[in-house]
Amino acid sequence: MQPDYSSRAAHIMQRIHALAAISEDTDGVMRTFGTPAFLQGRALVQGWFEAAGLATRFDGIGNLRAHLPSANPLAKTFVLASHIDTVVNAGKFDGPLGVLMGLDLLENLRERQANLPFHVELIAFSDEEGVRFHTTYLGSTVVAGSFDPAWLTRADEGGITLAHALEIMAADATQIVGDAIPAADWLGYFEMHIEQGPVLWERQIPVAFVTAIAGQLRVELTFTGMAGHAGTVPMDMRQDALCAAAEFILIAEQFALSHGGGLVATVGKLALGRAASNVIPGEVVLTLDLRSPDATQLADAYAALQTYTEALAIQRNVALGWSLIQDTAPVACDAGLNETLAEAIADAGHEVVALVSGAGHDAVPISAVAPVTMMFIRCYKGISHNPLEDVEIADLTAAIEVADRFLARLAVDVARRHEGATAGQRS
Amino acid sequence: MQPDYSSRAAHIMQRIHALAAISEDTDGVMRTFGTPAFLQGRALVQGWFEAAGLATRFDGIGNLRAHLPSANPLAKTFVLASHIDTVVNAGKFDGPLGVLMGLDLLENLRERQANLPFHVELIAFSDEEGVRFHTTYLGSTVVAGSFDPAWLTRADEGGITLAHALEIMAADATQIVGDAIPAADWLGYFEMHIEQGPVLWERQIPVAFVTAIAGQLRVELTFTGMAGHAGTVPMDMRQDALCAAAEFILIAEQFALSHGGGLVATVGKLALGRAASNVIPGEVVLTLDLRSPDATQLADAYAALQTYTEALAIQRNVALGWSLIQDTAPVACDAGLNETLAEAIADAGHEVVALVSGAGHDAVPISAVAPVTMMFIRCYKGISHNPLEDVEIADLTAAIEVADRFLARLAVDVARRHEGATAGQRS
Repeated sequence: MQPDYSSRAAHIMQRIHALAAISEDTDGVMRTFGTPAFLQGRALVQGWFEAAGLATRFDGIGNLRAHLPSANPLAKTFVLASHIDTVVNAGKFDGPLGVLMGLDLLENLRERQANLPFHVELIAFSDEEGVRFHTTYLGSTVVAGSFDPAWLTRADEGGITLAHALEIMAADATQIVGDAIPAADWLGYFEMHIEQGPVLWERQIPVAFVTAIAGQLRVELTFTGMAGHAGTVPMDMRQDALCAAAEFILIAEQFALSHGGGLVATVGKLALGRAASNVIPGEVVLTLDLRSPDATQLADAYAALQTYTEALAIQRNVALGWSLIQDTAPVACDAGLNETLAEAIADAGHEVVALVSGAGHDAVPISAVAPVTMMFIRCYKGISHNPLEDVEIADLTAAIEVADRFLARLAVDVARRHEGATAGQRS
Repeated sequence: MQPDYSSRAAHIMQRIHALAAISEDTDGVMRTFGTPAFLQGRALVQGWFEAAGLATRFDGIGNLRAHLPSANPLAKTFVLASHIDTVVNAGKFDGPLGVLMGLDLLENLRERQANLPFHVELIAFSDEEGVRFHTTYLGSTVVAGSFDPAWLTRADEGGITLAHALEIMAADATQIVGDAIPAADWLGYFEMHIEQGPVLWERQIPVAFVTAIAGQLRVELTFTGMAGHAGTVPMDMRQDALCAAAEFILIAEQFALSHGGGLVATVGKLALGRAASNVIPGEVVLTLDLRSPDATQLADAYAALQTYTEALAIQRNVALGWSLIQDTAPVACDAGLNETLAEAIADAGHEVVALVSGAGHDAVPISAVAPVTMMFIRCYKGISHNPLEDVEIADLTAAIEVADRFLARLAVDVARRHEGATAGQRS
């Protein structure tokens, strides 16, 4: 079996490199939604889909979609998907890996003339990163049926609206409503993606299943003290906004460290007003990015940090501004699909690791209408959104075997359920 | 006595406001060295000197100087001075207060036809702030004899050299060497200045004597960790450069707070490389401004903070860059002059408070050749280098009385010493 997975992995890797060569930029990869490079890349992928014997179509938001039907016309649909747009100065794997692994799985199913008890739909989402229109999940919201038509009027930096961009792409926005997969038709959703974090890299384990996609709260804070001369204001008479910010940064770090459970807290931006080396900082503006897979933990952490911060501001005699500017709820992956995926990982002889996704994925909007799960694949040092993004061929080989075994187990499970249901009807 | 000091204070205040009305800028005061506003302001002050019956001259660096000779031609020289240049967006008092109080003292001595046992020289230094040529103490280094001729080739932002600027001011740079007061001629130096800090304001005391001008060390630090995704890197696998910086900021603050003795530590600038709210900071550059009136304390604090910082960098697995970019030694004020000044403060009925100057002053270069002392005057909320800079008339009244008493006591002390010396010669 192993040599076969190796050659399949090598083939996937060739395609990843071929797709990455199509870029708006010569340094990293850059294929943002609707650009000439995006359209050229999508055409390349479409060619591969067609060469695998899959009929393809572009939907109203420009997603590339292919369908491998079950012999049972009443079967439900299982979706394999990821995205083919990228961030600026991106790597090769974030998105394309899942699409091209999915293509490999379908090619293999067709070659084996497997008859699955569910339809398989393979989707290359047109926009997950949201770089161009400052949205995320444009592609998957259409498939989930949650696309907001108001987004069509959003303009990019050049003043081109999403509606106009779709026209330029020859996409028919009027069909967007019909492009959703009806809730009743879904069997589930499976996305394969690089981890974008260092856990698998450090633990030297090729894949993991994902229990949840973290919820995210983003806060903008302002500490306002009193600017003063660094030489003439005694230490005990200062209202140093930066010292207050430093205390906040360490409180947030220690809170997340000590609570565990996937809670992470990051101060990513910090700026001083009218800074000089000999002036006590009078105002500091900073951001807090707080994530957890557990909605209760996230809310509790938010409330606790706000309370601690108010207290330190009072103690330090500085004013505090606290604005919640983003609030995204956590998404739990489906327990049944995850059990099947965990079994497939064990079958393939790997340690079974459960991870939380700290980054958002297309699974988030889909989770509103279907059971979702994700498999993470080990990536070089956990680096992502960077030209250094890389995946080792051995890990890709392991991942494609696990994915194969997952689909096989899923087919057995679904067939068994059908039989049970039929038996139930008979009894 | 009191009504007289009141009217003298009111007169000084009128002159301060008249001088402040001459500015390159209409918002705050701005009279940087050698500009038309500077020359116009200096001419106004010269007119007041002359009106007081003092012969004036401009020296080679553009200082305005006046001499009130003692009847004893062999007497030494006691200098009253401060500066008349300003920072950008300055207040009215930083500099001019000392010059115009000095003028008032000389006017009063002349009116009383006092015969002092020392010559008095009143100097309005042309450049203390160093805004234009990124130097400090241009005026006082000439008087101290430590002016470096290499500075003449320095250019301002418009490309005009100091030598050329002096030509435009009709100052004769060739006479600079001869403009120094010879070391043997100095009796001492007395500068009156607003505190520029909040101690007197908070304690509601009008004046203080200054024991020392703090030494200053300035360090630029860089913490280099590893940038990463704020959602996907677990807390215990991070190398967060901003968390390291936050720990450093609080260590520096707590070290200075707990050691006292005039030690102050300030992180005034902090900048993140490639910051985004959802990215773990990979690099942070910041400054440390460390001051103390005690050279040993300053050196010990510097060494201790460097050691602590190296340890925290190792513990957090981040790289540390540490560059000393400024090193100015502390200057002690003269104990004898300070005793006389403290007695004058007590004579006038005020609590005697000793302060350290955290800011630099013209007394720093002068201290290399003469005994120096300074009197600080309470200013509004300790605010300085700001249009809100202000001094209450009651405090100015108190200050002019103390200065008067100081000169009177000094005259008695010097006369007594002369008598002692003469008696010694006779015996």
